[in-house]
This record gives sequence, C-alpha cells and structure tokens, in this order.
Amino acid sequence: MTHDRIEAARSWATGPSRRGEIDAFIVMDVMRAANAREASGERVIHLEVGQPGSPAPRSAREAAKRAIDTGRLGYTEALGLPSLRERIALHYRERHGIEIEPDRVIVTAGSSAGFVLSFLALFDAGARVALPSPGYPCYRHILKALGCEPVVLETGPATRWMPDATMLEAAGSARPLAGLLIASPANPTGTMLEPERLEALVGACRKRNVAFISDEIYHGLTYDAPASTALAHGNDVVVINSFSKYFCMTGWRVGWMIVPPGLVRAIERLAQNLYIAPSTVSQLAALAAFEASEELEGHRRVYAANRTLLLSELPKAGFHEILPADGAFYLYTRCEHLGSDSAEVAARLLERTGVAMTPGIDFDTTRGRSFLRLSYAGSTADIEEAIARLQAFSR
Amino acid sequence: MTHDRIEAARSWATGPSRRGEIDAFIVMDVMRAANAREASGERVIHLEVGQPGSPAPRSAREAAKRAIDTGRLGYTEALGLPSLRERIALHYRERHGIEIEPDRVIVTAGSSAGFVLSFLALFDAGARVALPSPGYPCYRHILKALGCEPVVLETGPATRWMPDATMLEAAGSARPLAGLLIASPANPTGTMLEPERLEALVGACRKRNVAFISDEIYHGLTYDAPASTALAHGNDVVVINSFSKYFCMTGWRVGWMIVPPGLVRAIERLAQNLYIAPSTVSQLAALAAFEASEELEGHRRVYAANRTLLLSELPKAGFHEILPADGAFYLYTRCEHLGSDSAEVAARLLERTGVAMTPGIDFDTTRGRSFLRLSYAGSTADIEEAIARLQAFSR
Repeated sequence: MTHDRIEAARSWATGPSRRGEIDAFIVMDVMRAANAREASGERVIHLEVGQPGSPAPRSAREAAKRAIDTGRLGYTEALGLPSLRERIALHYRERHGIEIEPDRVIVTAGSSAGFVLSFLALFDAGARVALPSPGYPCYRHILKALGCEPVVLETGPATRWMPDATMLEAAGSARPLAGLLIASPANPTGTMLEPERLEALVGACRKRNVAFISDEIYHGLTYDAPASTALAHGNDVVVINSFSKYFCMTGWRVGWMIVPPGLVRAIERLAQNLYIAPSTVSQLAALAAFEASEELEGHRRVYAANRTLLLSELPKAGFHEILPADGAFYLYTRCEHLGSDSAEVAARLLERTGVAMTPGIDFDTTRGRSFLRLSYAGSTADIEEAIARLQAFSR
Repeated sequence: MTHDRIEAARSWATGPSRRGEIDAFIVMDVMRAANAREASGERVIHLEVGQPGSPAPRSAREAAKRAIDTGRLGYTEALGLPSLRERIALHYRERHGIEIEPDRVIVTAGSSAGFVLSFLALFDAGARVALPSPGYPCYRHILKALGCEPVVLETGPATRWMPDATMLEAAGSARPLAGLLIASPANPTGTMLEPERLEALVGACRKRNVAFISDEIYHGLTYDAPASTALAHGNDVVVINSFSKYFCMTGWRVGWMIVPPGLVRAIERLAQNLYIAPSTVSQLAALAAFEASEELEGHRRVYAANRTLLLSELPKAGFHEILPADGAFYLYTRCEHLGSDSAEVAARLLERTGVAMTPGIDFDTTRGRSFLRLSYAGSTADIEEAIARLQAFSR
C-alpha cells in the first residue's frame, strides 16, 4: 500500500450521523486553546477546567503502584471490584448514617459512564428529561446523542438558581417527563439545594412517576453546611458520584452510582457491553483514597481560602455579580461589562491576561453569553496571580 | 435518616427502559461464576475470558509508576495525549508501511468506547448494521442499546466463517445497510480474512455507500500470515484497535481508532461529552508499551505453543471439530457430544472439571448452542492442566 494510493482513495461519504452533531463540551475546546498557548511558552493560569490542582491522594498513588508491581490488572467484574463496592457502601454509613447494600453500588468509568448507563437504563428514545439551566452541558448533549429530549428548567434568583416543583409541573404539562436530573452543589454555579427543597423535589418526582437522578459529584466540597444526599429521601433515586473532584482523581476515570435494586441488572448488562469494566488500577487507587481524609480536607481548606479570596477580590476586577457559591469549586459570574458574548470575552481574557476561563454558553445556551465560570481548585498562588492579572486588565 | 425509613420507601417504579433490556455479555457472567467458585477455595482454570495471563509490559508498568510519582494525572484532551496519537500513527508506518495523520488517531477508553463512538458518529437510530455471526456479542448489544438494528450475516465453512459481498448484497436488499463491522482475526473463531477478500469487502461497501468498520483488536496475534489492516484499502474506513490484547493491557481500558478526516470532529464532540477523556495513566503506560516488542513477541510465542498443544490434544478429549484458528487467542469448538445446550455444558464442565469456558450462545444466538469458546492466552502450564482435566473428564 503506497501513500499515493491512500491519497487517491475517495473521501468519506457516509458519516457523520445526525445524532453525532451534538454540541462540543466547550470547556474541552477552551482547554485545548489554553494548552496550545502554553506550549508556545506563555504561562497560562488554568481556571477553565473543573479539576483539582493536586494529584490523587498519597494513599491512592501508593496503592496504584503496589497494584502495578504485583497484579495482572485484568478486567474486573463489570459492576466493579467487590471490595470497592463495599467500601463505597460504608462511606454512606460513615458520612450520612445511611445503610446501602453493596449490591446497589456500581463502580463506573467516571461519572460520565454513570450518566450514559443511567440514561440508557431509565429512558427510551424520545423520553423527556428535565435539567436545570445553567447546568453541566454534557447532561444535555449525552441525552441528545442517546435520542432523548432534554427539557430545560430555567432557574434564576427567585429560586436561588435551583428548580422547584412548580417548574417540574410546568415542564411536564404538555407531555410527561421521564426524569429529572439535579446536581447539588451545582456546576457551574456552586449553588446547593437545601435538604427540605431536595426532599420536596424527590417527592414531587415520585408523585409524578419521574425518575430522580442526583449528581452528587461535588459532595464533600462545601464550605458552610454539608450537602445532603438524595438517598436520605428514598431508595428510589439514582445517585451518581465520582472520585474526580473531592478525591482529586479526574484523569483516573473512576466513579460510582447507587441505584434502586430493580435497576442493578439492567445496568450490569449495559456496563458489560458498553464498558466491560472500569480501569482496574483506578479502582484499586480509589479504594485507598478513602484512607486520605486528612489530605483531602487539607485541599478543601485551600479551596475555601481561594473562594474567600476571589469573592472579595473579583469585584475589584469588575466582576460584581457572582451567583451563590455554596459548594463545588466554581464561581459563576456575570461578565457583561466586558462584552455581550462570553466566548469572545473568554478568548480575549486568555489572549490578554493568560487567564483561561469557560464561557457561560457551555452551561446556559442563552443567558450564558453574559457569564463566565472560574474554577478555584488550583493553588492559592495561581488564584492570587489570576486576580492580579484580571485586576490589572480591568484598570 | 433511619434505615426503617429507607425500607419503607416505595420501590422503584420508573425503570428499566426497554432499551436497557439488552442481553448480558455472557462471558462476564461466566467469569463471575468462575470467580465465586474460586473464592470458595477451588482452583479454576480460566479459559473463559479473552485476556492475556501476563500483565502489561514492563516498560508500560514503569512508565505508569513514573507518571504516578511525578504527574498530576488530570484530564487529557478528549482525543487523547498528542504524543500517544503520534506514536500510534508511527505504528502504522512501522507495521504496515502506511502513513496516517496523527489527527486521525483517536485514543479511546478501550475498544468498547471505540464502538460506542463510531456507532453514534456514523449511524442514526434505526440504521441497519451488518455483523457476521458468530461474532463478538457486544457489537450487537451496543447497537441495540443505541437504537440501531444489527443485521446478522450467518457465516459457515463455505466462506471459511467470514462474510462476503454476496451476503452483504442479500442483507441490504430489503432495506439498505448503513454499515458493516468485521473483525479479523475474529472473536470467537480466530479466523482471518485474506487481504484480497478484505479488499473486496471494503470495495463492496464503498460501492453501496456502506460504512466499513474494521475491528483490528487481535492484530499482532497471528501464527502464520500477518493480519492486514483495512487502512491498506482506503482512508474511508473506521479502524478500531486496543492495547488490551496484543499489549496485555485489558484492565487499563485504553484503545484507539483511526477514522476518516471528516469524522474526527463529530467523534471529538461525542468523546468530550460521553467520556471526557481516556485514563491518563493508562495512556502514558500505552505510550511506553510500544517499546516492549521483545516481551510481547515472547507472549505471542507462548500463545502459539498453547494453540499447537490444544489443537493436537483437544480432539483426544472429544472436541473434534475446531474452526480455523488463524489468529487471536481463541478456539471455537463444537461441543455437541456433551449436550445440546452449550450454556449447560459450560456450567457442567466448570462444576466437574474447574475449567471455565464460554458458551457459544454469546457469539451466535442460534448455532452457538453447539459451540464453546476457549481462550489460550494463559500460561502453558494452565493449558496443560486444562487439557488433563478435560481428557480425564471425557474418559
């Protein structure tokens, strides 16, 4: 086979499919632009990607290296290592005083796999699934790729940027909803649902036979009150979580779900076929990450300090309206004073200050043109440098 | 929240979905039964799962440990580390004399992600996709979960257990096909398509505007002639490959695709949303695995010895009809002399001999009742022990 012959071969004529035409996860495109800038020698402050600046905890890294030295690291069972499933169940007893059968714990290749598996297991094509906006864009894109219809619940200050039963009722009035997905603390806002409002929403879903999916990936990352789990309000909810955020293991791609007993086998079959199993070394590292409370709480204190710093200093750089930042490690701020298109604003800020941020249109296709998301999961030195650059730019 | 209150919560009422009702990947269920048996103290010989008995090559393990010691291991770009994409492109020049632009290389979370991504990017719901039978069951199950229609091409000795243009023509006569997926060497048979027949099939697909997907996961594992890549016959094919088999990295969940230029961005958007990125430590290990030719060729020689041993000894245990085993590390053998239901036969053999094998119904829902699949990717000592047990059982 010669190169010429490849060149002569006719170009692709069959793809892409219509459903392949989902939107990009813009933050990943921003990250690529920021990396390219960095590769050209400039120092970029990365506030664009939602990932901790710290590596996995020491206990996790040591466990991974031991496993690499001693194990074959073949496939695990599709639902994950039994020891890890048990340890995750124990976590709910320790953290929330809730008993979860290890059989209901499903280890996944990050929360990303949790979304794909729960959407496929719960919803047929055409199903309408409600999501708050602003919100994590991949929910809506994955649902579309899988033939479901995302139904946007537009939130605002009146409900403290969270949906309520009234919005659910309205969204389901024309055609019934099949599901509601909530993250609390939320991405990009950091806003949390109070326990009573969470319970009310779970109840409203139950009454309407709407599946309730609770994305709890930012649990553990709160700065005043702790986050409450949807599992406190019934075992008929699907909880999705991950080792990426609190446990600082983004690139390891390991997470978990807690599902109702009646859904375990359907998810197991889907997981066997679509994923085979999550990464074995990542599962063993995750198991050991539960031993790292002290280290992880130290990181949380850094985020808390970063958050305090940003909340007091960003207004001096012109960012005056920041949404309620109860948890996670994000601030979601208006940026209208810099322009009417946040994508353009983010690109300009990256070019002029070397500070990478994500335009709000990733999280809210309409109002997001007026917002930027900042992640404060990096070092305090980086946050200070970002503040200095943004303040200098605003002068 | 009390335990009683959880118990009192009403049971799940909304799921599972109809499309969640795909079949299990039976080999994973067999593996679980075999593991349970092993946990009770019995020594089980694992011929059921298609994975090497050896760990990842030393260079890969060392690279992983170095990365864990020195890196943050955050997310990579969705399409994978640029250095790994370049190295994979180079592999095609070295191995096949073919120039591949690194931009067309997509790193995936195992070939499993390659299937999901290529199916979503190429096929809309309702698309008809042809697959040979016997074949890897997850193809058909993933297609179903994603709303596509698998169209089975039943192969047999007349075409040496591979499809041909006539079957393609017949399958597309009622309603047009959108795709054809072929693995060569194939799972479960090990059978290979000769270069001329591969070229003819690619041409037949091109003529009919049918997307050609080539699963090349068992490349490198051949015992007479090398396998040829579909990329030798045009750049308008999708090639799926993985580090799991030849490179002994099953549990690391890392693979790759080569796609036509026009499909890259669609797959990037899907990958960003559905996976974020493949495991970082696995990608760094995979990059170093390319340095391990000597070690990996050593493993291949072990498989070759195991294959020779089984082909000569299995007939003495009553297994007289084994399909052409050109490559991969499987034998697919008739087992009618032991019963008319291979699932029952496999369960009985596991119970009576401690040898775990996979029933053919995983790979061929009808004729598979008469077949078992054996993997010979373990140690020669294990293969000898399995042969001794099976021969003793047959006496």
